[in-house]
Amino acid sequence: MLPLHTTNIHITIPKMGCWFYFLMLTITTAVASPIKNQIHLLRPHSGSAGHKHSDINCLSWRLAVETDNLQDWTLVPQACKDYVGHYMLGKQYRDDCDFVAAEAYKYAKGLNFTKDGKDIWIFDIDETTLSNIPYYALESVAFGSIPYNATSFDQWTAKAVAPAIPGSLKLYKQLIKLGFKIVFLTGTREKFKEPRIKNLKAVGYTQWEKLILKGDNDHGNGVEYKSSKRKELVEGGYRIRGNMGDQWSDLLGSNPGDRTFKVPDPMYYIA
Amino acid sequence: MLPLHTTNIHITIPKMGCWFYFLMLTITTAVASPIKNQIHLLRPHSGSAGHKHSDINCLSWRLAVETDNLQDWTLVPQACKDYVGHYMLGKQYRDDCDFVAAEAYKYAKGLNFTKDGKDIWIFDIDETTLSNIPYYALESVAFGSIPYNATSFDQWTAKAVAPAIPGSLKLYKQLIKLGFKIVFLTGTREKFKEPRIKNLKAVGYTQWEKLILKGDNDHGNGVEYKSSKRKELVEGGYRIRGNMGDQWSDLLGSNPGDRTFKVPDPMYYIA
Repeated sequence: MLPLHTTNIHITIPKMGCWFYFLMLTITTAVASPIKNQIHLLRPHSGSAGHKHSDINCLSWRLAVETDNLQDWTLVPQACKDYVGHYMLGKQYRDDCDFVAAEAYKYAKGLNFTKDGKDIWIFDIDETTLSNIPYYALESVAFGSIPYNATSFDQWTAKAVAPAIPGSLKLYKQLIKLGFKIVFLTGTREKFKEPRIKNLKAVGYTQWEKLILKGDNDHGNGVEYKSSKRKELVEGGYRIRGNMGDQWSDLLGSNPGDRTFKVPDPMYYIA
Repeated sequence: MLPLHTTNIHITIPKMGCWFYFLMLTITTAVASPIKNQIHLLRPHSGSAGHKHSDINCLSWRLAVETDNLQDWTLVPQACKDYVGHYMLGKQYRDDCDFVAAEAYKYAKGLNFTKDGKDIWIFDIDETTLSNIPYYALESVAFGSIPYNATSFDQWTAKAVAPAIPGSLKLYKQLIKLGFKIVFLTGTREKFKEPRIKNLKAVGYTQWEKLILKGDNDHGNGVEYKSSKRKELVEGGYRIRGNMGDQWSDLLGSNPGDRTFKVPDPMYYIA
């Protein structure tokens, strides 16, 4: 409940105009406040008339997602749809991404290495280097609160118009300057190789040591697929000095890298 | 600060009244709103006059702490002291703890086990089962924004008056009912064994399979110490089905357990 503005009013006379203003302002204030601050509400009242309001604390839900306490979830809870949308479109998500990238750079620049071309940094692509926000903001996707539609997501990927995540792009450039080789390791299937290359280059990711996509012979879930590809890299003499992804399945399993960095993503979960 | 109430406005000149009300209400609303919602400000203006305000986004800082993106930090940033204090004393911290505990219970009750007494759940103690908030809220500690004082913290531990973290206590009871054996594994030194037992029992943690404290012969950092103790447990035939701690050093290393749960703690970092 909002604090009530004391309305123990004293005016009996005036011509109704004051009451009207007073009433309107009180209502406006009461109605406007939660909307204004909606992204920060502990329990955002999402959904409109008729929707039962769930008891979930969306901030707690997101923290559980980001810390891997919550696993194998399939949909953003209906009650958190608006919260996630506000977060993804607002300043906080960008700040959170910038913070991770800045920590990654602090770590990377403190490393000693031989510049023999074998020190690599692994980046996942979706929600790590490229952002699918324009797709996820569609009404038919609703920030991951509506079941995943592979066909429409594939069509979006094929368009190759995903923007860069600014913090990650900056980090990418800094890492190259430091002498790292970049490896993009994505769960995107091989058939999207051309649009992915086009998309990466268009937004500023112009060079890499390897771009690894999921082939027809690559099986298993995210952890298994990525672990097997990292194993190949290590067997090829590469040293994985850093590994960055938006999913814990990018960062767990074998040969995760000397240090891993979790980029926020409250929109979907890949095991 | 309390929300401002518009009380003492008695209009004598009806003609001016409307505008006056309008103005007063507008100002009151404008002034009251940021104070009301201070705990949720993205960039809380901590410190008072004369303190330079840091550019840190405290929500991003906390997320980086909780996801282990930020490591080896020694102090809560000065600019985030108030933010961390509000978080720890407010509803959000408790909700976050409840959420983790609820997820842990969902996982635990889905497990099949033989009830041979070898299925264990490991709990860390400080900020996992017992809360040091009464100590950390002291002006001389300031929620971890003032350098750690081992002497005064030891005195606090010896008092054995730390409250339980409600979500964890509830989980503890649920796990015992399911048939798990409980192991408390803490970095607290052996010499505090008696006050720890007294404290645990006083708040409701009345039984356990083992209570492991750090002995004089236990060396290494948190990850090494806890890994070595977990190794002993596994060699003793125990199956670590779950492992819960507020520090990533409780949850990383060898034999972490079938699943780990990270309880929030933005007040200190143990490597």
